[in-house]
Amino acid sequence: MRLSSYFLPVLKENPSEAQIVSHRLMLRAGMVRQNAAGIYSWLPLGHRVLKKIEQIVREEQDNAGAQEMLMPTIQSAELWQKSGRYEDYGKEMLRITDRHERPLLYGPTNEEMLTDIVANEWKSYRDLPKILYHIQWKFRDEVRPRFGVMRGREFLMKDAYSFDLDQAAARRSYNRMFVAYLRTYARMGLKAIPMQADTGPIGGDLSHEFIVLAETGESGVFCDKALIERDVLGEGVDYNADLQPIVDSWTSPYAATDEKHDTARFDALPQERQVAARGIEVGHIFYFGTKYSKPMGAVVSGPGGEQITLEMGSYGIGVSRLVGAIIEASHDDNGIIWPMSVAPFHVGLINLKVGDADCDKASDDLYGKLKAAGLDVLLDDRDERAGAKFATMDLIGLPWQVTVGPRGLKSGVVEIKNRKTGEKEELSVEAALNKLSAAKV
Amino acid sequence: MRLSSYFLPVLKENPSEAQIVSHRLMLRAGMVRQNAAGIYSWLPLGHRVLKKIEQIVREEQDNAGAQEMLMPTIQSAELWQKSGRYEDYGKEMLRITDRHERPLLYGPTNEEMLTDIVANEWKSYRDLPKILYHIQWKFRDEVRPRFGVMRGREFLMKDAYSFDLDQAAARRSYNRMFVAYLRTYARMGLKAIPMQADTGPIGGDLSHEFIVLAETGESGVFCDKALIERDVLGEGVDYNADLQPIVDSWTSPYAATDEKHDTARFDALPQERQVAARGIEVGHIFYFGTKYSKPMGAVVSGPGGEQITLEMGSYGIGVSRLVGAIIEASHDDNGIIWPMSVAPFHVGLINLKVGDADCDKASDDLYGKLKAAGLDVLLDDRDERAGAKFATMDLIGLPWQVTVGPRGLKSGVVEIKNRKTGEKEELSVEAALNKLSAAKV
Repeated sequence: MRLSSYFLPVLKENPSEAQIVSHRLMLRAGMVRQNAAGIYSWLPLGHRVLKKIEQIVREEQDNAGAQEMLMPTIQSAELWQKSGRYEDYGKEMLRITDRHERPLLYGPTNEEMLTDIVANEWKSYRDLPKILYHIQWKFRDEVRPRFGVMRGREFLMKDAYSFDLDQAAARRSYNRMFVAYLRTYARMGLKAIPMQADTGPIGGDLSHEFIVLAETGESGVFCDKALIERDVLGEGVDYNADLQPIVDSWTSPYAATDEKHDTARFDALPQERQVAARGIEVGHIFYFGTKYSKPMGAVVSGPGGEQITLEMGSYGIGVSRLVGAIIEASHDDNGIIWPMSVAPFHVGLINLKVGDADCDKASDDLYGKLKAAGLDVLLDDRDERAGAKFATMDLIGLPWQVTVGPRGLKSGVVEIKNRKTGEKEELSVEAALNKLSAAKV
Repeated sequence: MRLSSYFLPVLKENPSEAQIVSHRLMLRAGMVRQNAAGIYSWLPLGHRVLKKIEQIVREEQDNAGAQEMLMPTIQSAELWQKSGRYEDYGKEMLRITDRHERPLLYGPTNEEMLTDIVANEWKSYRDLPKILYHIQWKFRDEVRPRFGVMRGREFLMKDAYSFDLDQAAARRSYNRMFVAYLRTYARMGLKAIPMQADTGPIGGDLSHEFIVLAETGESGVFCDKALIERDVLGEGVDYNADLQPIVDSWTSPYAATDEKHDTARFDALPQERQVAARGIEVGHIFYFGTKYSKPMGAVVSGPGGEQITLEMGSYGIGVSRLVGAIIEASHDDNGIIWPMSVAPFHVGLINLKVGDADCDKASDDLYGKLKAAGLDVLLDDRDERAGAKFATMDLIGLPWQVTVGPRGLKSGVVEIKNRKTGEKEELSVEAALNKLSAAKV
């Protein structure tokens, strides 16, 4: 992409409405614009990040054996009356009446709808087990939307639902999602720690929030330092194997949000391993048994003809929220620092002297070669001062910057800068190309 | 994907609520289920097709130089009051009131919102020209939703908007989209014919509908047979070149929907070139000048400081509707016939005798090899009769069927069937693999 024709409205000043750094940087880097309270448009740069995050989430759900589908945003109120949540949900639910005076709503979640679908389709135990998921926009009419996409009203979410014949099988599904979540966040360069969460009236220990540590986090969290120092999970997970040992290894060290904090257990840790910090919730997984399958009639026949009410769980990841969470976890005073896997472009290529025949030719040439190597490249071909160009690149946070200038070209080199470490080196075009190709995820 | 664990609820009987063949086949093939009038869930098989169509649309928009972004589904009523369309739109617009009694609506289209965004961001002629697009769910509260996804209430649409400094530039943007649309439909195996459409009060000739011929089409169409016999556009379009000759070559032969039909011009054609048929609208492109930029204040400064009101056009493709349109254009009595480019899976692999060690081994082996060759494969590993397996494969319409049976294996062959032509041949596993790899799009 050539910056001269790209829709990238960067802001020099900090917008006054933004209270947290991710909101500020997303506005300044021209990633989003607010259209109404808590409702955002994703401009091209922001959209690229959103899509890359969505794709990582999708791939890891698929790897774990979940099947993608897509439910609509608008739901019939009838379903929610059946489950008993229509009244409970209160004003956070956006309620709608259509031209025929039928009550609809903008789905805040999909337990009812999917349970209704499977209740109509599945008759036999042979239809189980299954994990189904979708990635769709949801709406929650927050009283006071704020923090940009971290707490918007319209937000993109991956929600998965597991259906099993008994509790032991439900736990296996739960474990699959648990491990898939660890993999998902690790691929985005995030250290997300699973913390035991409230299970409500159902009880049991099968509810975890995944929390990213960040100073601006919405809740206080307490955990054993061992969890922060752990290596993240590698690629070769066999989802058909017993995953309980992996889950146990992550859940046995102490970790809790302030809601579930157990001071005695925390204090029993050696002092140097006590971490008290703030965190951002980026996922929540939850086993809830027959809470929805019973009222919605999701029942199948067993091998002996007996009736089995399905055991269910649900598993959410806030996809649009993750864009903000990654920025909260990875930025400096100059702007965003994208991990390679979710960067809108891998490389920012700066032509220092647009209009200079040698610089133009070398830039265009390198642009073509980097793209041919499979890298996403943003070429700054604007007629601007060098300072403004460097500032824009630092702000939008592409992992690698390559600068092509007249002086370097004379000695056959370009300058490469690593956005994260700030390290710069001069390399021949050939060597630069090799280095960046190797850095590609 | 293994069919034994795939969520694919096929129906043996024709559902009574479906009036047209695409709706019938999408229900029977387990692609969609209705959740409320005109509101559908896309089950895994249907979702795969939807995503493949979406991706072709995206790639061709990108090739034409359009930039992807994403606007929200919920819009503020205020924007529409500004353009004057809030009242005009009538009951088709789904109107919503939030918890703070603010009037919102579910976007049926995005001219207002995007014009408002660019009016805030662009100040100079140097910000132009641009074509921006998004692929997002829309809602139109039809009185009588019907024909499945062909005329649903919640539907997926690609809508692009062009912004230019003058009419000549606006026509160049229009031509880019015109050509991109030809390419898009061609890649899906559709012959879509551009037909002059109503421009409303603005006048001019810059409005075309793209129509696919199908017996079940909603409108009558008339055209010169030359358009049907034309070769579709190849890949190597240079969008920076003058596209007017390509556009002219498609718009000079006669073609019109019954709304714009000119009997005299049609009758002047040699009888053997007069085609009177029915058609399905799959796209609409439209130049509308300053209709929205004027009331929304989308104005930039020109080189001499003069104020320029932007010239705009909009360009829609019904992505979810295309799933139905492709089926209308490509099916037989046994089911759907997917073109390779949008098929949910490229190959249906039938293990004729599940439980037979040789058949299982050969099937699993071929399944792995086909996937390694980059093909999407659905393996029927269910313990079912051969007849039921063949019927399912014909119904869901995968382009290639490969049957592994005990008799064939004894002589070292599998059977390959082309779903479209019905041709069958026996090939060695090696030869089958080569043939299918070569057929991949």
